[in-house]
Amino acid sequence: MPNSISFDRIAIDSLEKKYRIALINSISGFKSASLIGTCNSKGQTNLAIFNSVVHIGANPPLLGFILRPTTVPRHTYQNILDTGYYTINHIHQDMIENAHQTGAKYDEAESEFEKCGFNTQYYGDFNAPFVAESRVKLGMRFKEELPIKSNGTYLIIGEIVHILIDDETFLDESGALDLGVANTVAISGLDSYFSPQFIKKMPIPRP
Amino acid sequence: MPNSISFDRIAIDSLEKKYRIALINSISGFKSASLIGTCNSKGQTNLAIFNSVVHIGANPPLLGFILRPTTVPRHTYQNILDTGYYTINHIHQDMIENAHQTGAKYDEAESEFEKCGFNTQYYGDFNAPFVAESRVKLGMRFKEELPIKSNGTYLIIGEIVHILIDDETFLDESGALDLGVANTVAISGLDSYFSPQFIKKMPIPRP
Repeated sequence: MPNSISFDRIAIDSLEKKYRIALINSISGFKSASLIGTCNSKGQTNLAIFNSVVHIGANPPLLGFILRPTTVPRHTYQNILDTGYYTINHIHQDMIENAHQTGAKYDEAESEFEKCGFNTQYYGDFNAPFVAESRVKLGMRFKEELPIKSNGTYLIIGEIVHILIDDETFLDESGALDLGVANTVAISGLDSYFSPQFIKKMPIPRP
Repeated sequence: MPNSISFDRIAIDSLEKKYRIALINSISGFKSASLIGTCNSKGQTNLAIFNSVVHIGANPPLLGFILRPTTVPRHTYQNILDTGYYTINHIHQDMIENAHQTGAKYDEAESEFEKCGFNTQYYGDFNAPFVAESRVKLGMRFKEELPIKSNGTYLIIGEIVHILIDDETFLDESGALDLGVANTVAISGLDSYFSPQFIKKMPIPRP
């Protein structure tokens, strides 16, 4: 095609660093945007934005996310290993600025909850802090970490032990959470936020 | 809150099976929707829809996806192990019906390309079939598979060796692929398709 563009591996590796990061981070398509809440063994809270939460299975209910222990979210990693618990909190349209700001490098003694304008919420005796402003929150128990040899990152897997939803009308009659009604955002790359508009629900495909 | 609803782990495990599947598949937020193209050692092609493609890293350029070897996509898995190559193809709004249909259980001798109305496209000597109709396509080389003990699934990791984009205007000046311009869709749960509308691009966060 006349306007098409292609990159082979040599071309990708030769790209200017920021350009390559922007390209590769956006090329996988839309991603979820979530805030992961943790605390250390002394109760110091931490909150960090992640765009790699992925569904692992429904029974048992398992979610994973990719973690880079050597960069910003290392407090998240250490806290999960130390306490065994964390929360995953949806980001809604009115939370974008504050949620994105949790990606800044704060000192361990500072809490991104406070620095970025979020309130902690605790639920029963569950050990990790939820984001009060989030309308869909998950309490997670750490299950396993899988080291990814190819680049030194980890897949962190946890099981869902609590689901907290602000409004029961977010759920449709099938049990599905209507992300449009909940106003949950999607992210592209590292910095571009989108509000998805519902197109259609498809039936189970049969040959 | 008056209309809030919560599920603890006992409640989740007690849900009717279809309700639980719908709830847990939607609770992780928006997901990418991609078609993974493979062929076996005899050249028989296969195409399957996946909603778990996840960014692993930019240097080297790595993507992962979750695979359940015991259900529908087993041809995908076997073909990747046999040949070492696969393609990841974006799903755009006008491809939803045909892409969703690749989730049906076809016999190994049948190709979802043919059955679901897609054309194969080959690029140079790259061994796996691309989806001609997709406007953003990735040629992938298998790197590693990580068995997930918690539920018997696998994280399949590959490195990007080709990026094929139909129109260079899909890329902005920073290198980011504009998923809105490319009309790539997002998926919620297993069956609900969304067209994301751009809200804003945020600057790099600093304390």
